[in-house]
Amino acid sequence: MSTDAPIVALLTDFGLDDTYVGVMKGVIFGLCPHARIVDLTHNISPQNIRQAALALLDSYAFFPERTVFLVVVDPGVGSERRALAVQTGGYCFVAPDNGVLSYALAQLPAAQSVELANTDFQLPFRSCTFHGRDVFAPAAAHLAAGAAMTDLGEPVSDLVRLPPPLLVRSADGISGEVLYSDRFGNIITSIGTLTWESDSSLSLTGRFDSSLTLRVDAEGAAITIRNHTLRGIRPTYSAAHPGDILALVGSSGWLEIAVNQGSAVQKLGALPGMQVHLMQNESQ
Amino acid sequence: MSTDAPIVALLTDFGLDDTYVGVMKGVIFGLCPHARIVDLTHNISPQNIRQAALALLDSYAFFPERTVFLVVVDPGVGSERRALAVQTGGYCFVAPDNGVLSYALAQLPAAQSVELANTDFQLPFRSCTFHGRDVFAPAAAHLAAGAAMTDLGEPVSDLVRLPPPLLVRSADGISGEVLYSDRFGNIITSIGTLTWESDSSLSLTGRFDSSLTLRVDAEGAAITIRNHTLRGIRPTYSAAHPGDILALVGSSGWLEIAVNQGSAVQKLGALPGMQVHLMQNESQ
Amino acid sequence: MSTDAPIVALLTDFGLDDTYVGVMKGVIFGLCPHARIVDLTHNISPQNIRQAALALLDSYAFFPERTVFLVVVDPGVGSERRALAVQTGGYCFVAPDNGVLSYALAQLPAAQSVELANTDFQLPFRSCTFHGRDVFAPAAAHLAAGAAMTDLGEPVSDLVRLPPPLLVRSADGISGEVLYSDRFGNIITSIGTLTWESDSSLSLTGRFDSSLTLRVDAEGAAITIRNHTLRGIRPTYSAAHPGDILALVGSSGWLEIAVNQGSAVQKLGALPGMQVHLMQNESQ
Repeated sequence: MSTDAPIVALLTDFGLDDTYVGVMKGVIFGLCPHARIVDLTHNISPQNIRQAALALLDSYAFFPERTVFLVVVDPGVGSERRALAVQTGGYCFVAPDNGVLSYALAQLPAAQSVELANTDFQLPFRSCTFHGRDVFAPAAAHLAAGAAMTDLGEPVSDLVRLPPPLLVRSADGISGEVLYSDRFGNIITSIGTLTWESDSSLSLTGRFDSSLTLRVDAEGAAITIRNHTLRGIRPTYSAAHPGDILALVGSSGWLEIAVNQGSAVQKLGALPGMQVHLMQNESQ
Repeated sequence: MSTDAPIVALLTDFGLDDTYVGVMKGVIFGLCPHARIVDLTHNISPQNIRQAALALLDSYAFFPERTVFLVVVDPGVGSERRALAVQTGGYCFVAPDNGVLSYALAQLPAAQSVELANTDFQLPFRSCTFHGRDVFAPAAAHLAAGAAMTDLGEPVSDLVRLPPPLLVRSADGISGEVLYSDRFGNIITSIGTLTWESDSSLSLTGRFDSSLTLRVDAEGAAITIRNHTLRGIRPTYSAAHPGDILALVGSSGWLEIAVNQGSAVQKLGALPGMQVHLMQNESQ
Repeated sequence: MSTDAPIVALLTDFGLDDTYVGVMKGVIFGLCPHARIVDLTHNISPQNIRQAALALLDSYAFFPERTVFLVVVDPGVGSERRALAVQTGGYCFVAPDNGVLSYALAQLPAAQSVELANTDFQLPFRSCTFHGRDVFAPAAAHLAAGAAMTDLGEPVSDLVRLPPPLLVRSADGISGEVLYSDRFGNIITSIGTLTWESDSSLSLTGRFDSSLTLRVDAEGAAITIRNHTLRGIRPTYSAAHPGDILALVGSSGWLEIAVNQGSAVQKLGALPGMQVHLMQNESQ
């Protein structure tokens, strides 16, 4: 697990107004002076485990092998919830056992997991309210510095899993939900993974259920969200006139609703959990 | 003071919308290419020296020795206020002489301080409005790269000090004030340092006055803030039902008012400076 | 272009709520493990090319030679707009060809530019909506790691240029416009570059037109913005009483309107594009 310049990638709901994130970095550098620290984001809504799970899902694969992901969205800090380190696919993940890793782990080979019980790999004084600093950051730093998983604690199994995003077949297509929206007001949905097969045709394979497949005609498809119906899936934002709404394949393979040079959220008011329907071919 | 990978930890009120912080980092890397830069936070309220002093107080001890803290909250930039470098406890601090270091320095051994008067350790062109870039960042970078304190300027003493947070004995306990609230809506008070002595008993030692001590019965204590009285000090958020308010010991040893999986600020509307009262034992 | 610790400086409109920036850093470290990554800012208003061009203009010169600037404000992603790498003045710049580099490049010697067409220097799978991750970050990382410009694509010329900020002579002085305001509410104008010649006199040389020059009497000058007229140009914020408005020379040489320990934006309500007039000497 050691390397000259190991990466520790942080994902939390700590925000950037307080010094919580900075303090965790101080702890990491104290234990692994040559780490490279990357912020995935710290602006997960407070205690929104699912939002963090989705953020990790769409991010982890762009990091080099041996990256240690330190994920702290931890409403149960100080309770009986377990603290975990998980190793799979060349990566390590350190997080509370509350499902925050489950979407990423579902895409990866079978994992080896341990509970972070060995206090030698924690700060000497462990608070009851900030395990990000006292338990998780030290574990991530030790792993980045070359510690073995088994040094940190005993193997565990049956990790907590979140229910996967909604994706179900219907008579004329497939139904999903809004997952989140981004800074640009693009609405990311659970309909994916979508892949362009040709200029006019896409294939869909369920991200969490690969037996769910569909061929989609790009021109003929119709997407319904709230009381709007959009015709066709476009390759890129600029396929619509500025200010016009369109459906396209986002950078992580999810079906995305966007407005060219504008905000789809502002136009549609869509919120996480709202249903989205893809009719495979509106003339069918 | 030199090391293979010296840390420079930044704490400012510059925010992240402008490029002020990024520019300081460019200056630092130009003078100390192997620095590790950590952001403590840049979202101190504009020119709020006390908020920055508290942020530094609760953070510095989690950084490894030889860390250089670069603290720029500087409403007096361009005036006669002095620019300082301070060395103590294995750390260096670089900041304007306006009290922003005083809370951290009060916890540390006697310090050696110099005024940043040697222009050889500043940028060649020094503006009147951005000493963070032109004076403080170069000083921090030179110290991180191994310069001696005495290279930067002449020794000075009588640094500006802020009045310490309120903490006074009363007939039935102790009175303090709200210091700040964090992203989660937890209310951090000046009542501390609190340490668990057993499952049912805590000791309190004044953070800025160690002669002020108190033994507190965890079950029997009562905390009053605005028109609310909370019974008992709990070990952790999850000791209350979700949505319920509770008092607990925060991760820096301060008495903290919180709502399990919710926001105490939203519930109580508490602001910095509001009085908080701890009755040692409500039956006394 | 190679160095032990090459710097990659990021400037985007991606914000810090999503993981877009973090993912780009994962890509950069995968290709150039020893890069130092600096965030200039990611809070450029969505798709505001001019704001990013100004941010880069005022920042780049504070970075050491061989810094690679990765600038992604890219409303035309997926359209026919070109993707560029530009080398000049010891720096590299990687950005879409939409004018975002044009203000910085106007200050630098003639540049060598290539179009990022060589797919060997892009991610294997290239999305249509996130070239920051798939095209620009890999190019910046390869340049930081020592790749030659000519490896990335064929030379191009006639880069897109933005119109320069307004600065025109008038009978009694010079007219400019509000460029932007910063976190402190300081209003930065296009009147510059201003340099103090003595305690009472400044010279002005047009930042984008060096033939436009003016000598300004610091005491006698009058600045008009909206229906306010300010007398004199001050050396520093503290030259005014707390709460009072003043004109001064900002840290990048632009004429700036500020309130000592307060916000000029709040007081004046000035927005980008509003006219500002400098009368050289009010008695003239």
